[in-house]
Amino acid sequence: MSETELHEPQAQPESELDEDDRLKPEFVSAVLEAVAAGDSETAHARVAPLHPADIADLVELTPAELRPALAAAISDLIDGDVLAEMNDWVREALVDALEPHQVADIAAELDTDDAVAIIEDMEPEDQREVLRALDPDDRAAIEEALSYPEETAGRLMQRELIAVPEHWTVGDVLDYLRGHDELATDFWEIFVVDPAHHPVGTCALSWILRTPRNVSVSDVMAREQTLIPADMDQEEVALRFQKYALISAAVVDANGRLVGMITVDDVVHIISEEAGEDILHLSGAGEGDINEPVLDSYKVRVRWLVTNLATALIPATIVFFFEATIAQMAVLAALMPIVAGVGGNAGTQTLAVTVRALATNQLTQSNTLRAIRREIAIAVLNGLTIAAVIGLAIGTVFWDHELGIVIACAMLANIVIAGLAGVLVPVTLERFEQDPAVASSVFVTMVTDSMGFLAFLGLATAAGLVGN
Amino acid sequence: MSETELHEPQAQPESELDEDDRLKPEFVSAVLEAVAAGDSETAHARVAPLHPADIADLVELTPAELRPALAAAISDLIDGDVLAEMNDWVREALVDALEPHQVADIAAELDTDDAVAIIEDMEPEDQREVLRALDPDDRAAIEEALSYPEETAGRLMQRELIAVPEHWTVGDVLDYLRGHDELATDFWEIFVVDPAHHPVGTCALSWILRTPRNVSVSDVMAREQTLIPADMDQEEVALRFQKYALISAAVVDANGRLVGMITVDDVVHIISEEAGEDILHLSGAGEGDINEPVLDSYKVRVRWLVTNLATALIPATIVFFFEATIAQMAVLAALMPIVAGVGGNAGTQTLAVTVRALATNQLTQSNTLRAIRREIAIAVLNGLTIAAVIGLAIGTVFWDHELGIVIACAMLANIVIAGLAGVLVPVTLERFEQDPAVASSVFVTMVTDSMGFLAFLGLATAAGLVGN
Repeated sequence: MSETELHEPQAQPESELDEDDRLKPEFVSAVLEAVAAGDSETAHARVAPLHPADIADLVELTPAELRPALAAAISDLIDGDVLAEMNDWVREALVDALEPHQVADIAAELDTDDAVAIIEDMEPEDQREVLRALDPDDRAAIEEALSYPEETAGRLMQRELIAVPEHWTVGDVLDYLRGHDELATDFWEIFVVDPAHHPVGTCALSWILRTPRNVSVSDVMAREQTLIPADMDQEEVALRFQKYALISAAVVDANGRLVGMITVDDVVHIISEEAGEDILHLSGAGEGDINEPVLDSYKVRVRWLVTNLATALIPATIVFFFEATIAQMAVLAALMPIVAGVGGNAGTQTLAVTVRALATNQLTQSNTLRAIRREIAIAVLNGLTIAAVIGLAIGTVFWDHELGIVIACAMLANIVIAGLAGVLVPVTLERFEQDPAVASSVFVTMVTDSMGFLAFLGLATAAGLVGN
Repeated sequence: MSETELHEPQAQPESELDEDDRLKPEFVSAVLEAVAAGDSETAHARVAPLHPADIADLVELTPAELRPALAAAISDLIDGDVLAEMNDWVREALVDALEPHQVADIAAELDTDDAVAIIEDMEPEDQREVLRALDPDDRAAIEEALSYPEETAGRLMQRELIAVPEHWTVGDVLDYLRGHDELATDFWEIFVVDPAHHPVGTCALSWILRTPRNVSVSDVMAREQTLIPADMDQEEVALRFQKYALISAAVVDANGRLVGMITVDDVVHIISEEAGEDILHLSGAGEGDINEPVLDSYKVRVRWLVTNLATALIPATIVFFFEATIAQMAVLAALMPIVAGVGGNAGTQTLAVTVRALATNQLTQSNTLRAIRREIAIAVLNGLTIAAVIGLAIGTVFWDHELGIVIACAMLANIVIAGLAGVLVPVTLERFEQDPAVASSVFVTMVTDSMGFLAFLGLATAAGLVGN
């Protein structure tokens, strides 16, 4: 096949990468030293065998002040594939440094989606200049893509696809593909369209390959297919690809006509961006799956709460060191951050689980009540355990059972409130079509801090712990 | 093609789904009411047209106590494809309720990877019984997959793939595929192997389709390809698919022989699980990209810190309501959670950005120093802004410029320390091959709480604010 087609699955030279497929630091510094020393030839020779994704990584790993020199040394290697793989910010800076006709040359060799990604962030003036420098077909394709709102299927799609009429046979398809060198080279299914260019079916390439020449494509194709409206938000596109395990899908305009194709490699980075279990790890909620049995969730979470309880003792101890400063009832001031802090951790756990379940469409109106009941159950179990531990510890250390009971009750109350807030706040935000991940945390922290202090200090006062 | 092949791209009946591809609550309750009323026929009729992924969702959305009745009503619809799409916990409970021979019937119709996913979590005793009920070929394939450690490529791969010798022509490949009905049906590339079954090249199906029959596959194939060792951790497999935009890849054993194939639809859910920008949202770090200009990051983060400062005033106000309780220097006790809390938020921002950058291999040894310098710069800017705001506000409200200066200095110090901890803790954990997302948060919170209290109370004491 042609060079471009061999380009895609080209392997990385193993020796320059560590076991996690990252460029080795020795390699990066060797290249950068050569660049800094003005030895462009050595730099070029080292970089040339790399995969485009690794060249993009190298540019990202280069300090900003050295990037122009690196780019100059390897300018012929920084092609469209490299730019398509590059971080948005780094690419933008590189592209800004290029002349519009250079950008046009690069854009012309790319699929529409990659060309759009490079051009869409340019200044309007520069963008117009690049478009003028493109040949009319490429310009029309890119201008159409830019006519769709940002972050929609219309921007993500490539116009390069194979569409054939329903009356063709498998043999017609093979002859057509073999006879037209200008057609798309990387595609995974063929779309069957009616005369008005509405999709009527789809054939995976493997079905075509396994079918004799004389069979009609209408006998091979699947009539049901997942169609993506061009104005669909890219997050929904990503969720749809994920849900139906799609490799590629047809994009249709408002009139239902086939206008493009999205392939899974273009949405993988969106899926990766939209997802997120780091928050689960950071909040110590284990797997954080809403179908996990209550006792299992309890075990994972209570262990974390005990850890947090232990570490919360250290800042509290420091406050306690300033007893003379805080005077009279310093003990309360030292203990109150524990009540607030552990409550905050409990709230964050619930929040993380809820946000995750909402993001993956696992938590819907159909099971919200169940999720709330489940979170309350876990919160009560967590609260009882932590209350017992802290109540006994404080009651013993201070030899004051009233103080122990007060902190235990405050802790139980705050953890239950934290659990409620952690599920109700994001669910309510989602119901009002706000992103639950963005605003929930402030509210939940405010609730757990406020209630922690209120419950602890209020109970202490009510119990008459403080001599009036 | 056969029914199974048409199954995959079958579209959802739009009417039962909302705009986010979730089952409508009305639909779910209608089905569950029919099930509860013993009207299996109605339930079956409503569920039958659904895509397997939606049937899996329906089972997940059904309360646990109703699931056996639902499963009984639609038992013929819960096939391997549905189980493969189902949440692990829900599937495990369903599978536990089945007889081993029923599980064997389901496993036999699936690709190895999906069969393994269903069988691997069963009790060893049940697992043996299922394996005994399988025919020898299926059993051997599944037993081999189970011989690899959990969460490795060996468990993810399917053994069903197309491998052809190097001397074949494109015509030979077509004849082979057309002549063997028992071959895999869904595949995206063909692997070329030597006589010892070592991979020597790969052909995307689109290349085969576009090439005349008499051309040798060795002239079409790409000789360079990304190979996945069978014992590679699934996270690394996912990162490799993402980095090189792979659709499928060959899996090789320790001797370099081709043993299986992984397709992107099997790693998409791993990519989604491993990624995570929710933590960025929750911590208010905006896009959280380490290549974002310092000033842009600063703007996003300082806005969030001001928001947090505002909400932190509420818990602090409550503490302040208990001035009489906390006695003498109640003001310090009321203000100290602000210093600690805002520092904590700053630390969490840095932490989230760092953890994300480590997870996506954007932050490596080559740019760690740069990342630390960048985080310190942002922390100093954030710290100066927040210190000025809180210092002026407190100095004015309490008409006490010393208290204003003390809290401003404490805030600046704590935010800078938070920034340092937020990057050093995860980077250090990563260097010692610990998961930075799991343990960092506890450490960073401990540091920011401790340093917040220490700096504020220490400075207040040193400044002689408290009358001794």
